[in-house]
Amino acid sequence: MFEVAELGHKVSKQEYQEQVPDLRVQLLDAQWELSKHDFPVVVLISGVDGAGKGATVGLLNEWLDPRYVRTFAFGKPTDEENQRPEFWRFWRDLPPKGRIGLYVGSWYSRPLSERVYGDISEADLDEALLRINNFEKALADDGALIIKVWLHLSKDAQKKRLKTLESNPKTRWRVTERDHKHLKLYDDFRSIAEHVLRITSTGEAPWLIVEGTDPRYRGLTVGKHILERLNERFAIGKNSVVNQKKGFRPIAPPVTGEPVTLLNTLDLRQSLTKAQYKTQLEKYQGKLNLLSREALDQQVSSIIVLEGWDAAGKGGIIRRFVPALDARHYQIIPIAAPTDEESAHHYLWRFWRHLPAAGFITMYDRSWYGRVLVERIEEFASENEWMRAYSEINDFEAQLVEFGIVLVKYWLHISKEEQLNRFQAREATPFKQHKITEEDYRNREKWDMYEHAVNDMVERTSTEYAPWTFLEANDKRYARIKALKIFCNQLEKALHK
Amino acid sequence: MFEVAELGHKVSKQEYQEQVPDLRVQLLDAQWELSKHDFPVVVLISGVDGAGKGATVGLLNEWLDPRYVRTFAFGKPTDEENQRPEFWRFWRDLPPKGRIGLYVGSWYSRPLSERVYGDISEADLDEALLRINNFEKALADDGALIIKVWLHLSKDAQKKRLKTLESNPKTRWRVTERDHKHLKLYDDFRSIAEHVLRITSTGEAPWLIVEGTDPRYRGLTVGKHILERLNERFAIGKNSVVNQKKGFRPIAPPVTGEPVTLLNTLDLRQSLTKAQYKTQLEKYQGKLNLLSREALDQQVSSIIVLEGWDAAGKGGIIRRFVPALDARHYQIIPIAAPTDEESAHHYLWRFWRHLPAAGFITMYDRSWYGRVLVERIEEFASENEWMRAYSEINDFEAQLVEFGIVLVKYWLHISKEEQLNRFQAREATPFKQHKITEEDYRNREKWDMYEHAVNDMVERTSTEYAPWTFLEANDKRYARIKALKIFCNQLEKALHK
Repeated sequence: MFEVAELGHKVSKQEYQEQVPDLRVQLLDAQWELSKHDFPVVVLISGVDGAGKGATVGLLNEWLDPRYVRTFAFGKPTDEENQRPEFWRFWRDLPPKGRIGLYVGSWYSRPLSERVYGDISEADLDEALLRINNFEKALADDGALIIKVWLHLSKDAQKKRLKTLESNPKTRWRVTERDHKHLKLYDDFRSIAEHVLRITSTGEAPWLIVEGTDPRYRGLTVGKHILERLNERFAIGKNSVVNQKKGFRPIAPPVTGEPVTLLNTLDLRQSLTKAQYKTQLEKYQGKLNLLSREALDQQVSSIIVLEGWDAAGKGGIIRRFVPALDARHYQIIPIAAPTDEESAHHYLWRFWRHLPAAGFITMYDRSWYGRVLVERIEEFASENEWMRAYSEINDFEAQLVEFGIVLVKYWLHISKEEQLNRFQAREATPFKQHKITEEDYRNREKWDMYEHAVNDMVERTSTEYAPWTFLEANDKRYARIKALKIFCNQLEKALHK
Repeated sequence: MFEVAELGHKVSKQEYQEQVPDLRVQLLDAQWELSKHDFPVVVLISGVDGAGKGATVGLLNEWLDPRYVRTFAFGKPTDEENQRPEFWRFWRDLPPKGRIGLYVGSWYSRPLSERVYGDISEADLDEALLRINNFEKALADDGALIIKVWLHLSKDAQKKRLKTLESNPKTRWRVTERDHKHLKLYDDFRSIAEHVLRITSTGEAPWLIVEGTDPRYRGLTVGKHILERLNERFAIGKNSVVNQKKGFRPIAPPVTGEPVTLLNTLDLRQSLTKAQYKTQLEKYQGKLNLLSREALDQQVSSIIVLEGWDAAGKGGIIRRFVPALDARHYQIIPIAAPTDEESAHHYLWRFWRHLPAAGFITMYDRSWYGRVLVERIEEFASENEWMRAYSEINDFEAQLVEFGIVLVKYWLHISKEEQLNRFQAREATPFKQHKITEEDYRNREKWDMYEHAVNDMVERTSTEYAPWTFLEANDKRYARIKALKIFCNQLEKALHK
């Protein structure tokens, strides 16, 4: 795989000076064009030590307008980063639409180096690569242009480079123990890198391998590649399939047959008397209080997702959790229309950004499931967008759970009649009137479509690691206690395992 | 000052139960009303140990709709916070317009406790209080409603509280060494707290002192106070002076006489030959490269502000800095129209959020000075808004400099004729055409107004700690070298002092 990058490619000074001015103008033009487009550009500059990653990024910053490029390195994670799943830092540093993000050191760095040093197994590496593929696919499906460059040096070139540096008193300090150690590991590194590149060279995010020995060849090749990929994307044009973000590969074909069954199996007559409720509320709030303090000690974070019909009682459940918790350690995130910064990113970006710090609890009042519920029904998302959301969501949740976050997802179910009763009751209560609008009645008319969407959602996102919990909510008391109880049990299990 | 909060205020259980339901409905109504208003609410719950800060915040989260309240505690700063001036964390956790932020532990915590423990002098404390007053004033002037509650316990009540806790095996663990130490320091704490409250009880952000002994009295009093302050603000109405954010106190009366002099004193004929330029460019880029690596080592951050006429060459200067720097350690922030998240905060919020991490360099291509330049001229900001911006900016910059950040502010000056030449040259260059629009010509017509605004700006914000540097930019080469040289000198001074 790397042989073509060991042929001794070179560009003469004259050729370089002839070509650079034109390339710069074209890159600047492309960057200007990009600012009017609706997709972000992610450029990864990876490769062998000393192959010129830093220099290439520096060059690109010179050639492009540096005001609309942001370079990221990802050194040692900060403590805020350490409190969240690994990809949190990558999500938070994604460029918005119309901009370029340059990455030296990226999601590839850790798995690659850990495998070379033998800290992780081959299977661990493959799992990490799978995660990377899913991540890049999610971005690409959303429209991101992903350009990945691997700068290569042959073993001989690497040796020669170290020798040259060491022979000059001015540069000798740049060669460290680590460099020699890496040289010894060169063959391992090469074969692992080849594996990594092979697995992650996907249709939507292919690698370009570039020989790193000659700076002029390297710079020109990378610059031209970026220009080509940009122009290729512009050429596809506004009306293309890709640019409409319609996607191309339906991942989850619609369930056929009789889909609307799950919700019908729920026994909505379940209820609690006022006395039962009072006793159990006290019991579980007390339990929750103790557990949440223990969770803070043990730095175990929780995420509670509340989805359900309008007026099903999400707010009421939140208000039963709140008194048991220390307000400094939880956060309620109500999900409404995205802000413009959120709209400029992948739809999952806004949820990543609110992940709880270590030991904290975040309750999402509606959530990322909006993508496959309201956005599906109202056609805010195209069929391909909400179709692929199922697997994107599963992958997102897998990362939360693997990190040790307690994730509980509730669907609050009420009957259609009960909903009407509650709408009318709200209209009769002065301080609740504002909670009922025309829109609620319009949503109600789409009850069957929602029921279908809920079934699809549960069928495709109720995973072993993050199952859905139905709350039979015709009786508010029953639903509240069940919610508290299940969360307590989950949290307890996580703390005492 | 605290005597009124030592009278043994109590509310009977019956009174409490009678009053709470009404209060809750009214608070919820007020919160709903707030969501339609254009200002944020900052509620500080401070006070003596054990006076019920946590419990009060918990209660407010129960009474209000917790989805639209966010509670902040500010424990030990994270390492990301430690890399920026102290107030960075407070700025980043301000509520947006229409929302409530609840603070237990706030900008008062550190100075107060450090003074009690004798870690800072009385003068240090007063300086910290001055900073707090400026901060709160900036928020209040921008429309924020600031509600500050101090929960008080008399020394006897404090003693009694510890005794009660200790006598119960279930609560004994809650009393620590620290509590007894604090009890010993009670008198000091009381007199220092009185000082703090006196200095920071300002017209825009007064303190309410509440006796903390009886939870019912405490809760009701705080709840009612918040409701009153909210309703008071709503009553002022949309057309009031406050709500139009016109402010009331002009801080910086316009300079009278012949203001347009500063820019005229610059000698725009200064220039460099191509050969001089080449030599010096190499020299200073080399120097900058070394210094920036040293800055990273020493964790000294830099901020470079670029302001100047359209086409004065800001981008050209940035491009001369870039090759000397490691792209992983700088960031260029181009300032355009604010995003909607930025618009929902004080105008300085967007600049605070981009402050560099330790050892990094941030270049602002246009900056917070937009407030007193384009926003003043185009009347996006009212006279009072841009008038008070001068002192807000001075205070902001003082915090940067005190934290050890190297702050350099450039004004790029060219003659009106030179600007016209450059506009025309741009129009003739294919890849620069998009840089010239109708708006540039419209701005040009306002040259005199801008000149006036620039003079005012320099006069009021060229402080000893953050002076303005003029770059005579009719000759691009001269301006670029001067910019590099001055930044190198400043950075060198900071590193080698």
